[in-house]
Amino acid sequence: MFEKVLIANRGEIALRIHRACREMGIKTVAVHSTADAEAMHVRLADEAVCIGPAPARESYLNKAAIISAATITGADAIHPGYGFLSENADFAEMVEDHGIVFIGPTPAHIRMMGDKVTAKKAAIEAGLPVVPGSPGAVNSLEEAEEVAEKAGYPVLIKASAGGGGRGMKVARSRSELAEAWSTARTEAQNAFGNPEVYMEKYLGNPRHIEIQILADNHGNVVHLGERDCSLQRRHQKVLEEAPSPILTAEQRAAIGEVATTAMRRIGYRNAGTIEFLYENGEFFFIEMNTRLQVEHPVTEAVTGLDLVREQLRIAAGQELGYSQKDISFSGHAIECRINAEDPETFRPCPGTVVDYHPPGGLGVRVDSGLFAGAKVPPHYDSMIAKLIVHGPSRAECLNRLRRSLGEFVVGGVDSTIPLHKLLVENPDFMAGDYDIRWLEKFLAKD
Amino acid sequence: MFEKVLIANRGEIALRIHRACREMGIKTVAVHSTADAEAMHVRLADEAVCIGPAPARESYLNKAAIISAATITGADAIHPGYGFLSENADFAEMVEDHGIVFIGPTPAHIRMMGDKVTAKKAAIEAGLPVVPGSPGAVNSLEEAEEVAEKAGYPVLIKASAGGGGRGMKVARSRSELAEAWSTARTEAQNAFGNPEVYMEKYLGNPRHIEIQILADNHGNVVHLGERDCSLQRRHQKVLEEAPSPILTAEQRAAIGEVATTAMRRIGYRNAGTIEFLYENGEFFFIEMNTRLQVEHPVTEAVTGLDLVREQLRIAAGQELGYSQKDISFSGHAIECRINAEDPETFRPCPGTVVDYHPPGGLGVRVDSGLFAGAKVPPHYDSMIAKLIVHGPSRAECLNRLRRSLGEFVVGGVDSTIPLHKLLVENPDFMAGDYDIRWLEKFLAKD
Repeated sequence: MFEKVLIANRGEIALRIHRACREMGIKTVAVHSTADAEAMHVRLADEAVCIGPAPARESYLNKAAIISAATITGADAIHPGYGFLSENADFAEMVEDHGIVFIGPTPAHIRMMGDKVTAKKAAIEAGLPVVPGSPGAVNSLEEAEEVAEKAGYPVLIKASAGGGGRGMKVARSRSELAEAWSTARTEAQNAFGNPEVYMEKYLGNPRHIEIQILADNHGNVVHLGERDCSLQRRHQKVLEEAPSPILTAEQRAAIGEVATTAMRRIGYRNAGTIEFLYENGEFFFIEMNTRLQVEHPVTEAVTGLDLVREQLRIAAGQELGYSQKDISFSGHAIECRINAEDPETFRPCPGTVVDYHPPGGLGVRVDSGLFAGAKVPPHYDSMIAKLIVHGPSRAECLNRLRRSLGEFVVGGVDSTIPLHKLLVENPDFMAGDYDIRWLEKFLAKD
Repeated sequence: MFEKVLIANRGEIALRIHRACREMGIKTVAVHSTADAEAMHVRLADEAVCIGPAPARESYLNKAAIISAATITGADAIHPGYGFLSENADFAEMVEDHGIVFIGPTPAHIRMMGDKVTAKKAAIEAGLPVVPGSPGAVNSLEEAEEVAEKAGYPVLIKASAGGGGRGMKVARSRSELAEAWSTARTEAQNAFGNPEVYMEKYLGNPRHIEIQILADNHGNVVHLGERDCSLQRRHQKVLEEAPSPILTAEQRAAIGEVATTAMRRIGYRNAGTIEFLYENGEFFFIEMNTRLQVEHPVTEAVTGLDLVREQLRIAAGQELGYSQKDISFSGHAIECRINAEDPETFRPCPGTVVDYHPPGGLGVRVDSGLFAGAKVPPHYDSMIAKLIVHGPSRAECLNRLRRSLGEFVVGGVDSTIPLHKLLVENPDFMAGDYDIRWLEKFLAKD
């Protein structure tokens, strides 16, 4: 096992990784910007190195400074957390070139999954289901009809040069196709100077369901079930749960099998998450995150595994030591991301935390670097805490979540706690009846 | 289910009960002394009633004031917590006479187990193993020899009128018996003016192991395994764990079966704990606690059950809904009792908490009514927080405990956190090698 790990991150995830290291008897090195000199991850680490000024590109994204910090302190591995350099293949390569272990997948896998085109190609080759559609441009109405028949209606016609919804049309049946196709081309021509369009199956109300994977360097791959992360605002996850309220054990086992098979085929290693859209019993690959995810604690709650510990063990060359049949799922878990933002406008609210009192008691976990007097700098992501609750059933989990949100005190900065309080009282959410567009509609109504 | 529960207690246990009620949709009424007007259990409850001045006998022990508070607020049940009136049969009776449900066993069972003599008699009749010895006074050496042969050496000879170790002698073999018997009688005569002695088997290094019981009003009884509470100072538990480091699954099942059978025989209902001394594979009944115990969270951690919820369900007449085969045990849990005391002299240290920062992250639970600014009044038990950690194995649990004790900040009052830090670094404790006398020896050496 490693003797000393440098944690190339900040905030709650730096603390999360520190805790796993501490529990495994591994020394920790924190790196930090000048803005984070007093932060919790710095206070708790065995050593801390300032790597530059506040803007991330000059510190948390400064590859050379981080590798220097690792070399100077004698760290034998680097954990990148999420965000920042966690999916930067060049960084992973540089780390390994310096004889330091990068706690994550190979640079090749990061690169493969970091590009939309190569990721989709790899996914198809590995047997992951993708959104059906045209392989490239659709140049005639006849071709459009063929693609639509194959993918199944409704279909989406999108400008190849597009973005922002312009040149994008839905055809719900064959009778709508001709008009949608020509309108999309006209809009594409007008908006982008290029009428070229491509097509894919249109998902009306998909859910975001992702599968957590663990793979060691010895060919052992398991999945840890799914997380439902459909509650999103501007593609940012707001609340996540495991299991998904709408998946059966059979569906879980089936998509898990597809996911583990795919990971075996591409020779993946360490932790990773395969993200899917899900609609009417079908999964469609979106992308793969080749790192630890923010929402990993809900999986930890229902499986009893410590994902950071597993990442460290895998990176150190250890075998998983268990197989799929040893993984069992117990109860239900929900995570609320708590951001330092105005809960109505979502405008970030940096500042100094005056009061901080996390909830406690049975089934409640809080991951946060906050404390009374902590500074929330304006330079970084506004997430300041994660509240994770676990209970025997989804209903009990919701009751526990409601109770613990009511106890949570963050004073001095605005937080999104009030938003979560609204969510846990909402009948749709309580019924598990939501998709990836639900939250924005809910917020628009408010 | 109840609509409103009055919580006849204070501190962390009042909060614990409030949380269970809140999660079940039950309104809560806090009662408090004038000293506790600003306490957390008062702040979070739906209603709060001041029941008198600080000394417990004028408030938390004031039966009439508590029942008045319940009547005035329309509470349909009272949860007594632990301590105070929780094992007061007269109070339970008064509560029921007022048409309010007492959340606990019947007054008869409280009474039966509240008296050493009737408890031992009931235990023997119910088939619980007790420390073997003479039924009463031993009046001749011949009789002493008979008792010793039957109980097995070593035996303890104790003054009937005794206390404080005087008139108490151990005979390790038959050859030591005559002298021990006559010395004990002489010392008894000198100390108490009465030479009468009685005898029981001497336990050299017993552990305190207790079995948690749940029984509904429909004849269903289960045990939830054991807690090892051998770490004690002056008969006060300091740290508890589940499972016991030295019990096998077979021993657990066997003593659990004995305990549930006994509870069926006496017709017990609600939660209860049967406390045993354990030595060389044998259990000896000490007493039964007819209430929720301080250390119940370690059982919650390893069984996944919410004991307060179960108490409420049982008191409302619901069936358990599961049987012994549905109870499984997962991982290892340890609880540290954190007291506002000088960690070396154990002198209570009331005052105002200036900083409060509980540890967080995976597998960590904190039950505490503390917050920055909270008052620790001098009038009550000095326990201010419970830290409970859960992990897949005892070793991982210890690592997590060490890590989270390191994060725990309580400023403004002294606390026993430093004592727990010493314990979790101690080789004997880490090896699980301790008995009920170990902690006092450890403290004497220090």
